Amino acid sequence: MEKDAQKSKLTSLDIPALTGGRSGIGLSPAPSRVSVLGRWMAHKLLDLLGDPPLTFVLWNGEKIPSVDKPSIARVHFRDSEVLQKLLVNPALHFGDLYSAGRIEVEGNLVDFLVTVYRAAAASPKFQKLKQAQTRLFNRPRPNELTDSRDNIHHHYDIGNDFYELWLDREAMQYTCAYFPTPDLSLEEAQRAKMDHICRKLRLKPGDRVVEAGCGWGGFAHHMAKHYGVEVRSYNISRQQILYARERAEAAGLEGKVDYVEDDYRNITGEFDVFVSVGMLEHVGREHYQELGDIIHRCLTPTGRGLIHSIGRNKPEPMNAWIEKRIFPGSYPPTLREIMEIFEAHEFSVLDVENLRLHYAKTLEHWLERFNRHAEKIEKSYDRAFVRAWRLYLAGSIAGFTAGTLQLFQVVFTRGDNNDLPWSRAHLYRET
Amino acid sequence: MEKDAQKSKLTSLDIPALTGGRSGIGLSPAPSRVSVLGRWMAHKLLDLLGDPPLTFVLWNGEKIPSVDKPSIARVHFRDSEVLQKLLVNPALHFGDLYSAGRIEVEGNLVDFLVTVYRAAAASPKFQKLKQAQTRLFNRPRPNELTDSRDNIHHHYDIGNDFYELWLDREAMQYTCAYFPTPDLSLEEAQRAKMDHICRKLRLKPGDRVVEAGCGWGGFAHHMAKHYGVEVRSYNISRQQILYARERAEAAGLEGKVDYVEDDYRNITGEFDVFVSVGMLEHVGREHYQELGDIIHRCLTPTGRGLIHSIGRNKPEPMNAWIEKRIFPGSYPPTLREIMEIFEAHEFSVLDVENLRLHYAKTLEHWLERFNRHAEKIEKSYDRAFVRAWRLYLAGSIAGFTAGTLQLFQVVFTRGDNNDLPWSRAHLYRET
Repeated sequence: MEKDAQKSKLTSLDIPALTGGRSGIGLSPAPSRVSVLGRWMAHKLLDLLGDPPLTFVLWNGEKIPSVDKPSIARVHFRDSEVLQKLLVNPALHFGDLYSAGRIEVEGNLVDFLVTVYRAAAASPKFQKLKQAQTRLFNRPRPNELTDSRDNIHHHYDIGNDFYELWLDREAMQYTCAYFPTPDLSLEEAQRAKMDHICRKLRLKPGDRVVEAGCGWGGFAHHMAKHYGVEVRSYNISRQQILYARERAEAAGLEGKVDYVEDDYRNITGEFDVFVSVGMLEHVGREHYQELGDIIHRCLTPTGRGLIHSIGRNKPEPMNAWIEKRIFPGSYPPTLREIMEIFEAHEFSVLDVENLRLHYAKTLEHWLERFNRHAEKIEKSYDRAFVRAWRLYLAGSIAGFTAGTLQLFQVVFTRGDNNDLPWSRAHLYRET
Repeated sequence: MEKDAQKSKLTSLDIPALTGGRSGIGLSPAPSRVSVLGRWMAHKLLDLLGDPPLTFVLWNGEKIPSVDKPSIARVHFRDSEVLQKLLVNPALHFGDLYSAGRIEVEGNLVDFLVTVYRAAAASPKFQKLKQAQTRLFNRPRPNELTDSRDNIHHHYDIGNDFYELWLDREAMQYTCAYFPTPDLSLEEAQRAKMDHICRKLRLKPGDRVVEAGCGWGGFAHHMAKHYGVEVRSYNISRQQILYARERAEAAGLEGKVDYVEDDYRNITGEFDVFVSVGMLEHVGREHYQELGDIIHRCLTPTGRGLIHSIGRNKPEPMNAWIEKRIFPGSYPPTLREIMEIFEAHEFSVLDVENLRLHYAKTLEHWLERFNRHAEKIEKSYDRAFVRAWRLYLAGSIAGFTAGTLQLFQVVFTRGDNNDLPWSRAHLYRET
């Protein structure tokens, strides 16, 4: 029953090729012939992407190599419509077509995506097309109170069992981990992330902490258990809240951590600490000042705050496919845009750290575990679901590796608060 | 002869009361009578400032205390024109009138200023007046190539002897020091600042470093001497460049550090490191993109950069008196405004640290040394000069203490550079 409920939600992935009845996924080319137009489109696509070192394999087996460079991957196209669609909106359609098995990548998927991202970022033609598409088609879903519920429900209520297969086993952190050395395990790195944030926030026993967006509650749990603070955590995903409460109860943390199924905009009360890890991406640009108002309303005069968010070096909408199929309403802000949260109430930014490569590494761990469980996941959902998620994880690794995505942690206090540490050395002391 | 040349430049301080022939500086009130209007103006001024806990002493000895709170200072006004002027443009006229001795503060000058800054920042009436004045009167001097020369000459070519009296004795750093613990001496803290920046830049022997704005050359000297790098430093203050060259020669650093008397906009060549400490305040908002272009032009693909600058939590022009008398053309940017340097060329911000209270402490050291040499300085210049500088130093302490001024260090690289350290622990390792 629970499983069925989860499965029905997935229809929102709604991949055209599957509903259209095509089902073949594989490397064997269909034997239909390639027209002059088909060949022209393949060349045009390579050109548009800035000629990355790829070989395109058309539906009849014909190969179209990019110029001069050794190819790092072969990309198989199942039919000529694939090329048509890619030429119109590559970012959006690649995801759907790949998920449906109408595109196959022979070679390392992450390397392929890094190569394409880098080449496209340097291709003036591609940039021009993207700008035009953003103007014409980009309608990110709004994030008013009811929209946010739908948007969050879309992604986070797929099923706790699913996420348990590939997130860290201790705290179910679905956000960037912290690898002070790159050889940490995922579990160690998520613990390191949580402690890193707690140190940045200078938590002390008795502090009242409010958390905006808490996922499965692992960070709130960690703070309450290891730092002796009282946490109230807000989340609009029911499944996550139920999971979080169950775990807190089992650990005897009742009274120490309070999971509230509500929107961050409904936060009430006064707190010594405001923290938000991985929620700002879902807030929407138009709500940053409102978020600042909420922090202003709930933070004590000497309160500390931290916002942890995916970001950009220059303003750019979320990848169209991710925004449509994976994270409706999401937007990764630039540091400049993030400042809108702070300026109106004269919050003072004390520390910004960019953990971009830490997210690439986190995602590598996730993808590796995901792949290990791919067969099991395919049985519960279907093949297109597995391919969509694999692409989303690999594409995210590629984004953080190529530098089109950033991860910012921003520490702040009120502007007139002089209770500040003299250095950040306390973040790096061995315990 | 050199002294005379310096002295003539000071006429640009051009304090009205002195040229107007008034000369009495002191606490004894002149016995002229106080009108109803005079009394009203005093009350009005207290009200405008948000009723800080002060006692105003009028020119006949009459006291006007602020409401209910114990007074933290007595402010003596020598005549009614003082009040008139303060009501029209307090930020601008206070400096001139204080310098001229027409206002005297009985009590701790820094505490007085912190109190006034905090009260005024919270006073809606004062904020409204300031906004109106900004719209009406604020014409910061432009920073085109020739203007910049004049603006910089105005401040930095007063005389090296003068700055030697109160800056640190080792490196003549006229920028915020770094106090990992607050009990460091000024010399230790300036050394710590230079090493902190070198660590943030991950300097290694053989690196080619370009410095935009080098003061008396102390930081370039330090990098070349202790980090085995080659430095080219740009500055448009002739006196500072001559001083820097002399010191480098005496230390046998020829060929290691090259001081160029030229504008940062004329930087040529390719460098592994771009660094600028305390120049951005003089660049002017309208030139940030241009500065970004210059960094883009001169930085290698794996190059690192750091900008150290006074800043703000929200956009606001420089204090009118400071902009007019002390630092023509200066503007302390917000973090949001600083991002204009980086966005166009997709530089990636890795680390931002706010060292606000470190600048308050640095300035406390400077003011203490300045006061120790006040008599000597007065003999070389005059009393109004000493009072103006004392006010400027005390006012800056107050700004950094009250939180109206910030100090940002921003570390960046190119957006696709993956040669990044996994943590910032290397900044805090004992050597």
